[in-house]
Amino acid sequence: MKINKYVDIETLGSEAKKDYIDRHSPFIHTAATAKKGEKLEVKVVMGKEYKHPDDFDHYISTMELWDGETLLGRTEYAAGSQSNAPVNQEVSFFIVPSKNLKLIAQAVCTKHGLWQSDEVLVEVQ
Amino acid sequence: MKINKYVDIETLGSEAKKDYIDRHSPFIHTAATAKKGEKLEVKVVMGKEYKHPDDFDHYISTMELWDGETLLGRTEYAAGSQSNAPVNQEVSFFIVPSKNLKLIAQAVCTKHGLWQSDEVLVEVQ
Amino acid sequence: MKINKYVDIETLGSEAKKDYIDRHSPFIHTAATAKKGEKLEVKVVMGKEYKHPDDFDHYISTMELWDGETLLGRTEYAAGSQSNAPVNQEVSFFIVPSKNLKLIAQAVCTKHGLWQSDEVLVEVQ
Amino acid sequence: MKINKYVDIETLGSEAKKDYIDRHSPFIHTAATAKKGEKLEVKVVMGKEYKHPDDFDHYISTMELWDGETLLGRTEYAAGSQSNAPVNQEVSFFIVPSKNLKLIAQAVCTKHGLWQSDEVLVEVQ
Repeated sequence: MKINKYVDIETLGSEAKKDYIDRHSPFIHTAATAKKGEKLEVKVVMGKEYKHPDDFDHYISTMELWDGETLLGRTEYAAGSQSNAPVNQEVSFFIVPSKNLKLIAQAVCTKHGLWQSDEVLVEVQ
Repeated sequence: MKINKYVDIETLGSEAKKDYIDRHSPFIHTAATAKKGEKLEVKVVMGKEYKHPDDFDHYISTMELWDGETLLGRTEYAAGSQSNAPVNQEVSFFIVPSKNLKLIAQAVCTKHGLWQSDEVLVEVQ
Repeated sequence: MKINKYVDIETLGSEAKKDYIDRHSPFIHTAATAKKGEKLEVKVVMGKEYKHPDDFDHYISTMELWDGETLLGRTEYAAGSQSNAPVNQEVSFFIVPSKNLKLIAQAVCTKHGLWQSDEVLVEVQ
Repeated sequence: MKINKYVDIETLGSEAKKDYIDRHSPFIHTAATAKKGEKLEVKVVMGKEYKHPDDFDHYISTMELWDGETLLGRTEYAAGSQSNAPVNQEVSFFIVPSKNLKLIAQAVCTKHGLWQSDEVLVEVQ
C-alpha cells in the first residue's frame, strides 16, 4: 500500500490517466501569508478538471489537513452527501496558526486508497 | 449521558451559565433555500458571544452535520489546531442536496460531552 | 433528532419492534471490577438476538465508547467490512482506567441515526 | 510528509532508534487462514518491545485496518484513554471476509505522524 501523490496532469499522455489522477487529488487553496493568532481559511477541494463519483461503493470518504507531521483536522463523509452525483468535493477548515505552516492534504477514496497533495507553505507573521 | 441542547441564553440568569451554554453550542449558518443538485455551503460555528478554550485537555474535538437521522459529514480536530487560544471554532461543509434538508449540528467537547444545535430547515427547489 | 435508547425487548409486543430495537442497540461486555493502571478489555457488540444488515446504503458506521461525558474511543466502518451480510458487529476497545468507570456505548446506523446503550459501571481498585 | 514503515529493529544500531521505531509501529495479530463469511478477529497493537506515551500533547490518536486500498475500520482515541501512562495500545477489529485479505495497519502519533505495518496475508477458504 502506498500514498498516491499528485503528478502534473499536463505531463500525462492519456485522458483516462489525467482523469484518474486529477479527480483523486486533494488541492489546497489558501493565502500565502497569514497573521499569527488570527483565523485562516484553508479550503481543500478534490480535483481541478475532473469530478469524482459519489456512489455508495465508491466515494471520497475522508479529507484531511496536516501541518507537517501534525494532523490539524479531518472530515469524513457518508456516501450520498453529494446526492450521488460526480462532484469536486470540498471543505473549508479554519485554523489559527502560531508559526509558519507546511500544509498537506490527504484524501481517501473507498476504492482507490490514500492520496496526497503537494505541500503548500504559508508564512505566518 | 445526554445530548445537551441549545437554550436561548437571553432566558438565562447568570453570566457563567450563558457562557457555558453559548460556547458549547454549534450554530448552523446557511441559506434558507437551495437548488437541487447544486453545491450548498453549510457553515457550523461554535458559540455566538463566547469563545471555547483550545487546551490540550479541554477542546472541541468534533463538529458534525446531520440531515435528520443521516450523518452528512463530521470534522475532527486535534488539540492545538486553534493555537491553544479561545476561539469560535468553525468549519464549512459543502453538500449537494436532492431534497429538503432538516439540518442539525452536533459537537463534542472533550470535557463537557455532546451538544446539539437547533434544527435548520432548507427548502430545496 | 434524538438519541435512541435501549428498551428491554421482552416488554415489547411486536416481533418487528423487538428486531428494530435489538439490532440497533450497542451492548457493553466487560468485567464488573478492574485494576487501576491495568489494561481492561471492553467489548461492544451490536444486538443480542437480531443482526443488522451491512448494505452499502444501510450499515453500522460507528461504534463509540464513553466514560460519562468523556469519549474514550470511536470506531468507524466502511460499508462491506462485514461482507455485506447481516451481523452482530463487534469491536474490543482496550483502556487503562485510573478511577471508577461509567461506561456508555453509542452507535450510528446510516439510516436510523444515533443509539445508546444502558450504562455499565466498573469498579476500579 | 511520508508514511513511516516498520524496519526490523534487530538491524538498528542505537537503543533510541529501536525504541522510536518499535513504539510507533502497529502490529497485526490474526490467524493465517479464515473461513468465508465467518467473523475474524484482527488485533492491532502498537509496539512489541517498547511502549508509547499517552500524554495530552503526544499520544496515539488513530489505529486503522486496511485490506489493500480499502479501509475496513478506524479507531480514534482521546488523550488519556490509557490513563496517561506508557502503553502498547491495542484494539480488536472483527471483520467478515469474503476473499483473501492483504491486511495493513496504519497508526497516527500526534507528534510523529503516520506509520504503517508490514503486510499480513490471510487465506480465506
